[in-house]
Amino acid sequence: MDTLQFVLASRPAGLPAPETFRLESKALPELKEGEVLLKSWYISVDPYMRGRMNDVKSYAASYDIGSPMKGGVVAKVIESKNLSLVTGDVVVGMLPWSTYCIENGASLRKVDIEKASPGFFLGILGMPGLTAYFGITDICRPEKGEVVVISGAAGAVGITAGQIAKILGAKVIGIAGSDEKCKTLKESFGFDETINYKSSKSVRTELKSLAPEGIDCYFDNVGGDITDAVIANLNFHSRIALCGQISQYNNTRVHMGPTILPMLLTRSVLLKGFIVGNYTEKFGEGQAQLQEWLTEGRIKFMETITDGFENLPEAFLGLFSGNNLGKMLVRIE
Amino acid sequence: MDTLQFVLASRPAGLPAPETFRLESKALPELKEGEVLLKSWYISVDPYMRGRMNDVKSYAASYDIGSPMKGGVVAKVIESKNLSLVTGDVVVGMLPWSTYCIENGASLRKVDIEKASPGFFLGILGMPGLTAYFGITDICRPEKGEVVVISGAAGAVGITAGQIAKILGAKVIGIAGSDEKCKTLKESFGFDETINYKSSKSVRTELKSLAPEGIDCYFDNVGGDITDAVIANLNFHSRIALCGQISQYNNTRVHMGPTILPMLLTRSVLLKGFIVGNYTEKFGEGQAQLQEWLTEGRIKFMETITDGFENLPEAFLGLFSGNNLGKMLVRIE
Repeated sequence: MDTLQFVLASRPAGLPAPETFRLESKALPELKEGEVLLKSWYISVDPYMRGRMNDVKSYAASYDIGSPMKGGVVAKVIESKNLSLVTGDVVVGMLPWSTYCIENGASLRKVDIEKASPGFFLGILGMPGLTAYFGITDICRPEKGEVVVISGAAGAVGITAGQIAKILGAKVIGIAGSDEKCKTLKESFGFDETINYKSSKSVRTELKSLAPEGIDCYFDNVGGDITDAVIANLNFHSRIALCGQISQYNNTRVHMGPTILPMLLTRSVLLKGFIVGNYTEKFGEGQAQLQEWLTEGRIKFMETITDGFENLPEAFLGLFSGNNLGKMLVRIE
Repeated sequence: MDTLQFVLASRPAGLPAPETFRLESKALPELKEGEVLLKSWYISVDPYMRGRMNDVKSYAASYDIGSPMKGGVVAKVIESKNLSLVTGDVVVGMLPWSTYCIENGASLRKVDIEKASPGFFLGILGMPGLTAYFGITDICRPEKGEVVVISGAAGAVGITAGQIAKILGAKVIGIAGSDEKCKTLKESFGFDETINYKSSKSVRTELKSLAPEGIDCYFDNVGGDITDAVIANLNFHSRIALCGQISQYNNTRVHMGPTILPMLLTRSVLLKGFIVGNYTEKFGEGQAQLQEWLTEGRIKFMETITDGFENLPEAFLGLFSGNNLGKMLVRIE
């Protein structure tokens, strides 16, 4: 049996392009004991994948040139030689960008699509949801009435982080890149205030007027100028959950900006860089809480779905031009 | 009775100069009930005072133009209308830069100069010692064998922080501004390695060769290029105690440097800006521990003492050219 797969064709300098990826066909071997044959259903594209395209030491291993891209995938079991999985089961795992693949069943987690839409296991109930959960509850720790600012607010992590901060009683300001996104943040996700950084004359001044009392927590997905504007408005004893720096991922040289440490010093700021993998021991707690809020209707989620396996590179590249509202997924029927 | 005092003559732009201060004579009123007449003995000059000369919101109130400079002072009680203090007692408090002053006894802490040299209450047993103690034990938290780097290592906070990290079993690298300072750090204070940043071709490369295993903790007193060099060598899950940024205090415009957040993100770094005042509830614990280590000879301290009240501005300015080794004090006999 053959599968299609996208491999990393070359390491991008700057913004990846369609040529960064190569579509290949590959024959799959016979199933061994313990293995399952999977058909990809929803494939996740995430900003962190850009870092794995570089050949540098980081928290996640680099993708190898000529090897398939990899990430979160929801797949259907087509054939099973694993005792815990049967044909028709739906699983989630770290899988290649391929239409079919063979995996050891032990590396997969079976999910119940009666409980949530399948893509949710790559979103609110998966890595982005947990990232938002731990960043807000463990690092930002907003108290009732405190001001929480979220950059990249309309992304999968951002919409979740904002809603969790609201549940904890904070005043939430989202920064996003279009009026449509800002409208959705307020109307669908209960954000108190929003800033469209693309049309704003000064994010710094706008933040000052939306939160004259100062900012207590900052959940940063973006970095760069937006982050500088937020830092200028931070309160004494404020907390920064440093989750992403998407504005910097495609830089070909180190970005120069104002030195932020004097401000972090005089305001006794806590800043914590983190990845969801720091919290593996608490995944169960996080998933249970997110599922509960979802069931109770206290939290909502949104997906931007692109259909067709061949559109994977385009969907991934769309993350860097802000094409997505909520979780960006590719669906393969 | 008259006192001499140094007032803030003008707000400095950039590096303060002798003209920043003005020496004045002032008549002292009669003592009221509860008050004491004090004669200054040791006056502390500290880098943080530079920030208080600016008219900006910070953790410490700005000095007013025309009002005396203020800071830590060890003084002798000359006359007392306070029931808890008698003539001859030695006290420490936040007092004006003056030869004499009148204070309410309640704002003073009596110290026992049999237990430690009087200047130590402004150093190892005072603000700098406690700053080092909480920065290392609460923020850096080095584990046995971990690598701790300290910038401004030869200052009052730096020598203390390094020795505490050694007591906790860390490998300690100090960065200072002269060969003499580096020699003293190794020979008198037990630092494992040192870097003279003024003669180093590349602090970043030197750190890499002194700590090929990477840096786990960074106690930052300095900021700027030195800090950028350290950050480039940080390990996953490293901790930064952000204590001072002396290289930046005299900037007239915001310093531009490489954006550090992507590095803090990918390495899951914890960074905490702090001032000793965040730990007031634990001062007793800190002082007791520092006193014990001092008594046991496990920790040493060093002072650079300038004699003569009139030399206060010069001593303060010396902090910014690195004139001090250990705690910089002015003694008035």
